[in-house]
Amino acid sequence: MGKLYGVGVGPGDKELLTIKAIKVIEKCDVVVVPSAMAGGKSIAYEIAEDYIKKDTEILIKHFPMGGEEQEEKIYEAFKSIEEKLKQGKDVAFLTIGDPFVYSTYIYLLKYIEEHGYETETIPGITSFCACASLANQPLVIGDEPLLILPASRLDSIKDEKYVVIMKVYKVEKQVIDFLEHKGYDYIYIKRAGREGQKVLKHKEDILKEKEYMSIIIATKR
Amino acid sequence: MGKLYGVGVGPGDKELLTIKAIKVIEKCDVVVVPSAMAGGKSIAYEIAEDYIKKDTEILIKHFPMGGEEQEEKIYEAFKSIEEKLKQGKDVAFLTIGDPFVYSTYIYLLKYIEEHGYETETIPGITSFCACASLANQPLVIGDEPLLILPASRLDSIKDEKYVVIMKVYKVEKQVIDFLEHKGYDYIYIKRAGREGQKVLKHKEDILKEKEYMSIIIATKR
Repeated sequence: MGKLYGVGVGPGDKELLTIKAIKVIEKCDVVVVPSAMAGGKSIAYEIAEDYIKKDTEILIKHFPMGGEEQEEKIYEAFKSIEEKLKQGKDVAFLTIGDPFVYSTYIYLLKYIEEHGYETETIPGITSFCACASLANQPLVIGDEPLLILPASRLDSIKDEKYVVIMKVYKVEKQVIDFLEHKGYDYIYIKRAGREGQKVLKHKEDILKEKEYMSIIIATKR
Repeated sequence: MGKLYGVGVGPGDKELLTIKAIKVIEKCDVVVVPSAMAGGKSIAYEIAEDYIKKDTEILIKHFPMGGEEQEEKIYEAFKSIEEKLKQGKDVAFLTIGDPFVYSTYIYLLKYIEEHGYETETIPGITSFCACASLANQPLVIGDEPLLILPASRLDSIKDEKYVVIMKVYKVEKQVIDFLEHKGYDYIYIKRAGREGQKVLKHKEDILKEKEYMSIIIATKR
């Protein structure tokens, strides 16, 4: 039986892959890459492609965001991966950022483990760490907590000094209005480590952006 | 003038350095490594040593935890680094984990920036991501928030489903009693990616450990 590796490929910069991730990608027989759009590009593939050997089999799997369709697609991906594992092939499943932070890999892993296959997970640089470095903005200092949340859960912000808001795409205005009302300073970062990366601090500039790969780092004044 | 690089070297496993971190360590004239104990070993140095060239100058700087003495030592470190920058030397300051998550580098960077030196920060694999991979334990799923905090701030846990508790050394019992009272499952991980690493789930086993490099990942039942 083959083994499944969940591999964090980091936020976008090809040089933010770890030595361990590269070694796993190089040695696996099959590399599975998720794609956010049907028939679309895979960001994870673009990040890792320089390290994928020519004779490696590549499977692109489309995972829609949420809902029943997502569950179906994850089960479909599991079945394709299981087929490879049964053939004794090692499989690397690539994940943007870290595999255990808001990732489709977590759902996939459940099936893999339920069926008794061997797995190993390789951590990756998270988007928020990469964005902090790019914006030169500390994430958390001293003995303060750090709250990380998707924009859909602004209600869970109490008065934490350090906050990271993920998935701000399409709700940028709502997030910024909330932060201003609550007395937070904020920095918007898009496409960290990729072409077109930007760090923005002014509301009017941020609201002009339409970018899926974007987060906001907020600090209470 | 030289440039200061803050370099995240990850949690302990030498293979969890990124390509970018290695390139910076290789090209800098001076590598500054923090040490938690006066005259003691530097974990950051041990992680990075294979990538430090023979003719690189190495400065070991002791930073005590907190208090006035820490401030003094950070200023002292700034002065030594400034001396090198003025000589036109590039300096890499190594940080365990990520430079912008609970790090001495953040305080040092203030001085460096106040004095107008050029800086660049290279993100690193955080301890909590490495521990999650080692324990095979997702950090956060779906649209839930993730709260990361030091053990000294247990009061800031409300009813977040996903929690990471850092700096549990010497207060393991207090943390576990709190988590059990609040209905959390927990996993204790020590020395992730280093010799003697352990993943423990039982209170009695955890309380036998005395390890500085340890964290707890907790999930509300």
